[in-house]
Amino acid sequence: MDDKLTAAMRAAIAGSDAVRGTTSPNPPVGCVILDADGNQVGVGATQPPGGSHAEVMALVDAGTKARGGTAVVTLEPCAHHGRTPPCTRALIAAGVKTVVFAVADPNPAAAGGRTVLTEAGVTVESGLLADEVERGPLRAWLHYARTGRPHVTWKYAATLDGRVAAADGTSRWISSPASRAQVHDLRRRIDAIVAGRGTILADDSALTARDADGTTADRQPLRVVVGTGDLPEGARVLDDAAETLHLRTREPSEVLAALGERGVVDVLLEGGPTLAGAFVQAGAVDRVLAYVAPTLLGDGPVALGASGVSTITGAHRFRVEGVTMCGPDVRISAVPDRN
Amino acid sequence: MDDKLTAAMRAAIAGSDAVRGTTSPNPPVGCVILDADGNQVGVGATQPPGGSHAEVMALVDAGTKARGGTAVVTLEPCAHHGRTPPCTRALIAAGVKTVVFAVADPNPAAAGGRTVLTEAGVTVESGLLADEVERGPLRAWLHYARTGRPHVTWKYAATLDGRVAAADGTSRWISSPASRAQVHDLRRRIDAIVAGRGTILADDSALTARDADGTTADRQPLRVVVGTGDLPEGARVLDDAAETLHLRTREPSEVLAALGERGVVDVLLEGGPTLAGAFVQAGAVDRVLAYVAPTLLGDGPVALGASGVSTITGAHRFRVEGVTMCGPDVRISAVPDRN
Ligand SMILES: NC(=O)c1ccc[n+]([C@@H]2O[C@H](COP(=O)([O-])OP(=O)(O)OC[C@H]3O[C@@H](n4cnc5c(N)ncnc54)[C@H](OP(=O)(O)O)[C@@H]3O)[C@@H](O)[C@H]2O)c1
Ligand SMILES: NC(=O)c1ccc[n+]([C@@H]2O[C@H](COP(=O)([O-])OP(=O)(O)OC[C@H]3O[C@@H](n4cnc5c(N)ncnc54)[C@H](OP(=O)(O)O)[C@@H]3O)[C@@H](O)[C@H]2O)c1
Repeated sequence: MDDKLTAAMRAAIAGSDAVRGTTSPNPPVGCVILDADGNQVGVGATQPPGGSHAEVMALVDAGTKARGGTAVVTLEPCAHHGRTPPCTRALIAAGVKTVVFAVADPNPAAAGGRTVLTEAGVTVESGLLADEVERGPLRAWLHYARTGRPHVTWKYAATLDGRVAAADGTSRWISSPASRAQVHDLRRRIDAIVAGRGTILADDSALTARDADGTTADRQPLRVVVGTGDLPEGARVLDDAAETLHLRTREPSEVLAALGERGVVDVLLEGGPTLAGAFVQAGAVDRVLAYVAPTLLGDGPVALGASGVSTITGAHRFRVEGVTMCGPDVRISAVPDRN
Repeated sequence: MDDKLTAAMRAAIAGSDAVRGTTSPNPPVGCVILDADGNQVGVGATQPPGGSHAEVMALVDAGTKARGGTAVVTLEPCAHHGRTPPCTRALIAAGVKTVVFAVADPNPAAAGGRTVLTEAGVTVESGLLADEVERGPLRAWLHYARTGRPHVTWKYAATLDGRVAAADGTSRWISSPASRAQVHDLRRRIDAIVAGRGTILADDSALTARDADGTTADRQPLRVVVGTGDLPEGARVLDDAAETLHLRTREPSEVLAALGERGVVDVLLEGGPTLAGAFVQAGAVDRVLAYVAPTLLGDGPVALGASGVSTITGAHRFRVEGVTMCGPDVRISAVPDRN
C-alpha cells in the first residue's frame, strides 16, 4: 500500500504542477482518489478562482468508487467556507476512509481540516513527500500564506563571468535555446513577470511566454514594469498580448504590496541589474535561478547591481538547492541562507 | 581479464595522479604489472627528471613475476634514449608478453614504442580508459607535447554575480574552506602559479600550497608574478617558501614562452581579472575552473577584465566539462569550444 500511496502522491504533485499559474490567490493543489483496493479511480486539481478545489474535482472523477477509499492530496483539505464549500465536507460525504496529505495548511482561516476529518472518523496521515511539495508546486503559495508577501524568483541569464549583456548592450542570446525554452515554460506557470524600466529601454522585452516557434502561449502572466519614468510609446510590453502594469516606484516593498493586493502569489523577477540589486538589498528575493552560459565577455553589465554591500563579510548569503545542466548551460537554484 | 585490466589501468592512473607536479617536463605516467594470471605484482610512476620512468619502476617492483605478464601503462612506452634508456627495452628484457597503454605518445622523438614492442613479439593494445587519462593526469603534458606550450588552467573564486572581491577590495574568504582546500591540493600538483602584479598589491598573496592547518606544503610550485612594475619590498610572494619569478611583461605569449623554456608544463593562472582577461583574449586559457560561492555582492571587481569582446556574438565560447559541488560552492570546469 505504501508504494501505491507514494505513486498517488506523485500523481497529485503532477496535477498540482499542471495548474500552477492558474489558481492564485488559491493554492495549486492536486488530489488523487484510491478505491478500497488501492487503485487510482480519480484525479483532480484546483480550478481557477471561484471554481472547484482539487478534492472535489477528484471525487467527481471517482464517483461512487471513492467510498471506503483514500484521498491523497498535496495540501491539507480546507475546512472553511470560502467561495466554495469546505473540502472536508465533500470528503466525508463521499465516504472516504483515509486522507493522506503532504503539507499542513499554514493559513489559520483554512486550517482545522485535519481535526474536522478526524472527528468525523476519517483516518488522517500527513507528511508524505512533503519536501517535494514544499519546494515544488506549493512553494510560492506556502510562502505567501506564511508571510503575506508574494514569492519572488529572481531569474537571470549570465556568462561565466557574470555578465548579462556585452559592452555594446547586446544580450541576445546569452543563454542557449534549451535554457530559453525552460524560461518560457516557467513564465507560463507564474502569476507575474517583473522587470525594471531599464530592461524595457535596452531590450524592448515583450515579457511574454512564448512557444518554441515564437508564438505567444495561451496563458500569459501579468507583466509588471517598475520605474518612475515613462515607457516608450510602441514598447512591446504595451501590446495587447497580455496585461501590463507600470508601477511608478523604485521600492521593492511597494511592488510586492501592489502585487499582493491583486492576488499575485508567484513572481518571476527578470531584472535588470538595478532592480534586482534593490530586491536583493530589501531581502525580497526568495530564490535565485541563474542560467550560466559557458562563455566569457570580460566587459558589459553584471547580473546584479548595487545591493548595499561594501565589504565581503556583508555579502548576501544563499544556499544552493540544485545544480543541473540545461543544454550547454549550468542552471543554479539557490535560496536565502538564513543562518 | 577485461575487469583486471581496467582495475590495473585505474591503479596506473592513480599512480600517475600521485606524481603530478614532480615530473615536468616529463609526463607523470603510471604503470601496473600483472603476472601471467592477471594478479597485480608491481606498480610504478615516473620519478623526477633524471630518475626512472614508470615502467622501469613497476618492473623493478614486480621482479621475475613480470615474465609472461602484462604491463598496463597510461602512456605509450618510449622507444628513445633520453636521460634514461628506452622503456620498451626494459619491458622486452623483463619478458612481458602484453602491453596495454591508454594514450599514444604524440611526441615524435618518443613515439614508435608500439612498433618496437610489436616487432619484438609483444602484443600491444591501446585506448583503455584513454578519455580519463587525457582529461586527467596527462592532460597538461599532452597539451604541451602537442602544442609546445604549457597548459593553462585559469582558476578563480567568485560570487554568484561574478565578483572576485567586494567594493572595498576585501576578498577573504569568497569561497568555502572545502573549495580552498581543493585549490591548495591543486597548487601542490602543478608546476607554476601565475598571478598579476595587481593581485599581489591588493592581497599580498603568498601563492604557496598550504595544508589545512596553514603550514606550507612540502612541495611548492614555481611562483610567477606578471607585470611591468616593481613588487613591494616585503611582499609575501618574495619570501623563501618557494622560488619566485617576476616577469616584467604584459604579454601572455611571453609568459608562456618563458615558462616553457624552464620546462613548466602545467600552469595555474590565479588572476586577477586584468591578467586573466589578457590570457583569455590571447586564447591562452585551456581550461576554466570556477568556484562559484552562493553569495551576492552587487558591487566589486568581476572575475574577468577586458578580453577584447565588444558585442555578444564575439563572446569567448567554452564547453562545460564537469559541474560538482565543493562544500557549499559550485565548481564548474570548462574547456574552449573550438567549433
Ligand atoms: N540577461 C538577463 O537575464 C537580463 C535581464 C534583464 C536585463 N538585462 C540587461 O540589463 C541591462 C539593463 O540594466 P538596468 O539596470 O538599467 O535595468 P533595470 O534594472 O531593468 O532598470 C533600471 C531602472 O529601473 C528603475 N528602478 C526600479 N527600481 C529601482 C531602484 N531601486 N533603484 C534605481 N532604479 C530603479 C529605474 O527606472 P526609473 O528611472 O524610471 O525610475 C531604473 O532606471 C540591459 O543591458 C539588459 O540587456 C539582462
Ligand atoms: N577571487 C579570486 O579568485 C581572485 C584572484 C585574483 C585576484 N582577485 C582580486 O582581483 C583584484 C586585482 O585585480 P587586478 O586586475 O588589478 O589584478 P591582476 O590582473 O592580478 O594585476 C593587474 C596587473 O597585472 C599587470 N598586467 C599583466 N598583464 C597585463 C595586461 N595584459 N594588461 C594590463 N596589465 C597587465 C599589470 O601590472 P603592471 O602595471 O606592473 O604592468 C596590471 O596592473 C583584487 O581585488 C583581488 O582581490 C581575486
